[in-house]
Amino acid sequence: MEQTPVDIDQLRDAIDRGDAQQVGTLVAELYPAEIARLIESLPAHERQAIWTAVPDDSEGEVLVELNEEVRSSLVEAMASHEVVAATEGLDIDDLADFVADLPENLTHKVLESLSVQDRERLQAALAWPADSAGGLMNPETVSVRPDVNVDVVLRYLRMRGELPVNTDSVFVVDREDHYLGVLTFARLLTSDPEAAVTELMDPSVEAIQATSSATEVAREFQDRDLVSAAVIDGAGRLIGQITVDDVVDVIQEQADHDILSRDGLDEDDDMFAPILTSSGRRAVWLAVHLTLAFSTAAVINLFQATMNKVILLAVLMPMVAALGGIAGSQTLTLMIRSIALGRIQGANISPLLRRELSIGLVNSLLSATVVAGVTAVFFRDWRVAGVIAAATAINLLIAAAVGFGVPLALRRLRIDPALAGSVILITVTDLVGFVAVLGLGTLLLT
Amino acid sequence: MEQTPVDIDQLRDAIDRGDAQQVGTLVAELYPAEIARLIESLPAHERQAIWTAVPDDSEGEVLVELNEEVRSSLVEAMASHEVVAATEGLDIDDLADFVADLPENLTHKVLESLSVQDRERLQAALAWPADSAGGLMNPETVSVRPDVNVDVVLRYLRMRGELPVNTDSVFVVDREDHYLGVLTFARLLTSDPEAAVTELMDPSVEAIQATSSATEVAREFQDRDLVSAAVIDGAGRLIGQITVDDVVDVIQEQADHDILSRDGLDEDDDMFAPILTSSGRRAVWLAVHLTLAFSTAAVINLFQATMNKVILLAVLMPMVAALGGIAGSQTLTLMIRSIALGRIQGANISPLLRRELSIGLVNSLLSATVVAGVTAVFFRDWRVAGVIAAATAINLLIAAAVGFGVPLALRRLRIDPALAGSVILITVTDLVGFVAVLGLGTLLLT
Repeated sequence: MEQTPVDIDQLRDAIDRGDAQQVGTLVAELYPAEIARLIESLPAHERQAIWTAVPDDSEGEVLVELNEEVRSSLVEAMASHEVVAATEGLDIDDLADFVADLPENLTHKVLESLSVQDRERLQAALAWPADSAGGLMNPETVSVRPDVNVDVVLRYLRMRGELPVNTDSVFVVDREDHYLGVLTFARLLTSDPEAAVTELMDPSVEAIQATSSATEVAREFQDRDLVSAAVIDGAGRLIGQITVDDVVDVIQEQADHDILSRDGLDEDDDMFAPILTSSGRRAVWLAVHLTLAFSTAAVINLFQATMNKVILLAVLMPMVAALGGIAGSQTLTLMIRSIALGRIQGANISPLLRRELSIGLVNSLLSATVVAGVTAVFFRDWRVAGVIAAATAINLLIAAAVGFGVPLALRRLRIDPALAGSVILITVTDLVGFVAVLGLGTLLLT
Repeated sequence: MEQTPVDIDQLRDAIDRGDAQQVGTLVAELYPAEIARLIESLPAHERQAIWTAVPDDSEGEVLVELNEEVRSSLVEAMASHEVVAATEGLDIDDLADFVADLPENLTHKVLESLSVQDRERLQAALAWPADSAGGLMNPETVSVRPDVNVDVVLRYLRMRGELPVNTDSVFVVDREDHYLGVLTFARLLTSDPEAAVTELMDPSVEAIQATSSATEVAREFQDRDLVSAAVIDGAGRLIGQITVDDVVDVIQEQADHDILSRDGLDEDDDMFAPILTSSGRRAVWLAVHLTLAFSTAAVINLFQATMNKVILLAVLMPMVAALGGIAGSQTLTLMIRSIALGRIQGANISPLLRRELSIGLVNSLLSATVVAGVTAVFFRDWRVAGVIAAATAINLLIAAAVGFGVPLALRRLRIDPALAGSVILITVTDLVGFVAVLGLGTLLLT
């Protein structure tokens, strides 16, 4: 594995020259996921040149790896028989993801192209929510009975031939397909051919319920260092398996979501969507903040008289608001991350709250002292220094409480804390910062 | 797998009652990673009760899963023979991570406790940076020669017995240990026992260079849906393997880092570190922002006369600064994320820049129009509305340029964009916002 990234310059060069042959040669060297990343990274006209160069039998895999929006735009430009051809050979779990985003008439055509068995499997997979274990699983598994021996399993596997990607185990089931345990390939390969499956299998490895959320699945894989896991229905019957490659995608997508939604961005958006589409999406976020900022301004406006008397308050109030935002954001981010990582549970909330408030108190007093000192020295006004310091202390303490409480409250309300948390925090710290400075200023200095 | 999380309330209850036996029973049901998460989630005195309940033979695995700071505090309280005992049975890659953080005298004792072979392997592993493929790899691999047949491999594996965790392949090497290709267990299990390894192995699967960065390794695993990969030295000799469980940890840690460092937080910090330790860490971040905010205030202060004449400028200027920060943050976050995901390369920078500036222009004009309208209607001052609108347009456009350029510049300077990007952005958008409002106000309204 030479760690040379795709030579994107060379490729763009070939595209610009219209040298389809060289584009084809360069693209053929790449894995589907690399082609997908490349397509996502380029503007529309260059995308088309690369897409044309993708070998027919890789088209399906590339489509599956692409983000939703880019994929839809490519699929829209394809004839329906091309779409059906691209789905050939895809695993059922990938096919389910792909089909879920297709227009209904295309879904229908893809279903028609499948064997009866695959169609039933696909329909079963589509019955589960995409972000559940059932939605992540591949219905194809390798299962054996507990009463056979290793030699029988080995002969069965040879007869069966190709296995689903990243399968590292056979699952042991009874006559009614109830899951009993797992027998890893490593165990299978290192055991006596005469040994019985029932002796070798590990019955302590529990299967995953199809209704489990993708987040729970990811945590189980991480906690138990799994490569694959059995998925069972409510009756304990084996209905599929989840492999680690899909779990890695879940972890990556959740991280992207947590990072991007804080700025009102969506991980499924196309980097090169039409400019007005992207402007519109971002404008929604700006509009939310604009509305809140105008409300804050309306409140500030009530204190015109105070500002006119002590203009230094207007000079320093943005600093007080900003410091609250910065300190509160630290608590907020820690809380959102801890919730995402499963570190917040009923019982540790009160010691954590005490802790965050204590840290908030220490740092609010510290900041207030520094702010008072600098204001007094630099702006030579002791009374303003006192007001600014008191406002800073109040704002940082409230910021800690808001940063702590808002994610918990949002989680309870089933609102994404990563999306709404920072908007609420900034609004509160701005309001409190400005009102504390101007209110105290009105009371004490006018 | 019943998706009941650890019953932390029940456990805390048992700890409070001093019921060591029930604590032991509850802890014994958990995987090491779950115990580690639980320890990280609780205050110091409860940690100790859980740690005491961890079975001796799981102590090493729990320590390896813990974050650095929590681990150090537990290790400090252990006698050196307990530390040595805990390391028994750890894989070399985990042992290398563990030893890397130990005080020197303990490292020495752990090394002494190892067999000559393991000591050499450990020293070899420690020679690589922790965030390189060499640092991630486990030196233990299963390798075979190309000229043997499947039956020989099967007999060799049975004789060998236990395999390294998550091994899904044997690597094919020549007499000098040069890597030739890979033979997956799935292939091995589904092939004719008489078939030769040389026919079955896949020589197109390239090995990873030991010098590759952890980020590159993670990307390769994601692109190629790998479970394990061979690691080679500069001469192409097989020196270890990386398994997907370690890659999942890398992806998770990078996501944590990207999310937390934006607020000046560190993913290795203990959630329940002593309050003054945590206050001190966060105070550093506050101090940086405080310094920058005071500098901004000093600039605002130059415009006292203008504010005194047109107090509405002071009322509205925080809004202009805030909107710049919000819009710039969207571009900044997109850029930082795209860099992390390998989507930014030389050739797509200029179309992306054009795109972000176009979006910035559209939304700056849109925001300016709204701001002008609302200001005019609500504050009934057309001239101030004009100044605020112009300042908004200028700030949003500059914010787009800064959000785009700063991460690229920081990357070139090898400074973490996630850490420094938002500080720089906020400073610029605050300064530009205030100066644009007050400067234009001075020119046009006084």
